[in-house]
Amino acid sequence: MNLTDYLPVLNKLTESERTLLSSSATLRTYGKGEIIHGGNAQCTGLILVCSGQIRAYTCSADGREITLYRLFERDICLFSASCMMNSIQFDITLAAEKDTTVVIIPPDTYRKVMNVSAPLANFTNEVMASRFSDVMWLIDQIMWKSFDKRLASFLTEESKIEDSDTLHITHELIGRHLGSPREVVTRMLKYFADEGMVRLSRGTIVITDAQALEALSAEKY
Amino acid sequence: MNLTDYLPVLNKLTESERTLLSSSATLRTYGKGEIIHGGNAQCTGLILVCSGQIRAYTCSADGREITLYRLFERDICLFSASCMMNSIQFDITLAAEKDTTVVIIPPDTYRKVMNVSAPLANFTNEVMASRFSDVMWLIDQIMWKSFDKRLASFLTEESKIEDSDTLHITHELIGRHLGSPREVVTRMLKYFADEGMVRLSRGTIVITDAQALEALSAEKY
Repeated sequence: MNLTDYLPVLNKLTESERTLLSSSATLRTYGKGEIIHGGNAQCTGLILVCSGQIRAYTCSADGREITLYRLFERDICLFSASCMMNSIQFDITLAAEKDTTVVIIPPDTYRKVMNVSAPLANFTNEVMASRFSDVMWLIDQIMWKSFDKRLASFLTEESKIEDSDTLHITHELIGRHLGSPREVVTRMLKYFADEGMVRLSRGTIVITDAQALEALSAEKY
Repeated sequence: MNLTDYLPVLNKLTESERTLLSSSATLRTYGKGEIIHGGNAQCTGLILVCSGQIRAYTCSADGREITLYRLFERDICLFSASCMMNSIQFDITLAAEKDTTVVIIPPDTYRKVMNVSAPLANFTNEVMASRFSDVMWLIDQIMWKSFDKRLASFLTEESKIEDSDTLHITHELIGRHLGSPREVVTRMLKYFADEGMVRLSRGTIVITDAQALEALSAEKY
């Protein structure tokens, strides 16, 4: 595997910086459902997704969850290397949503190069700004959007990710994505079914009116 | 005014970089309540607080507000210079909460130096990580904390900022900080008054049991 293919910013580094990062990087594979980086665990390192899909989420003290963002091929997670920066005062959990292969760069090595390399530091800035934008979008959703619109938005997004109208997902898991109790998800899905937007069966949701669902998710308030 | 006093990272830059930033910086004063950077307005620039207090907030499509964080002396706001980074896909509003003096560095100048300076790019990273931590704390609050705890937390923080048990603030304004309707704030404050934690009069809230209020705000769930 050529690291530069996944991390084009390496082309802007010196030969020795590039070698240092490449030689420290390790490839790891996680099965669907496995925790890649967890809670207040150790500082795993910078994670670069080669294939698969990762869910980044945060937990309440009593174990409730909400999805912050998803990472797909070529995406990067900085917060699994939070020890790299003094000002990161929070922790997130990363779990493989599909079988996933990642490259992990040790935090000490990445920090060492970033400290002296303007290109790598600026690249890191852009990655963080991109996650910041994801989280600001989430605040907008949870503050101002009613649950029906958030659920419609989630189903629409899932359908795009899976490229299918048939979603194999439990109400419990949707609740964990949206930070809501399962019963609330079930109640709203039944309403969607009554309105002809979805058809429900055990462990499966079939989107029957994608247009209506998308229109609902796009409503401002 | 010596910019280096407020921005010690300048000591790590070259003489010409330091001169470029210092010579482009302008001092501006805003009266209490004035908008410093607004909505989808122009890209104001990097803002450095010399004195006063700034509220950073975000708005819903129908004009509801929630406070993201506050900026005090020596704090820096990057997001008023969001055009500096392609990946910043959101906008915030900054308003002076007290008479405020700031230094503004034009975004083009700051970006030009940051692009070639590892120290400035790394400093920018730390500033962004710090704001990211503020916003993650906010998500934790709005997702998992009931409104009584959030209100108790807000009153405790206000009392610390003002160094006083007497807060001159309307229920309407508290609602804008917390993203909640005024009626909800009024109802909860009345409950706090019944419990002996505050005393209410027109435009004023007196904290009468700071310990109880702080204990409530510290409850996990």
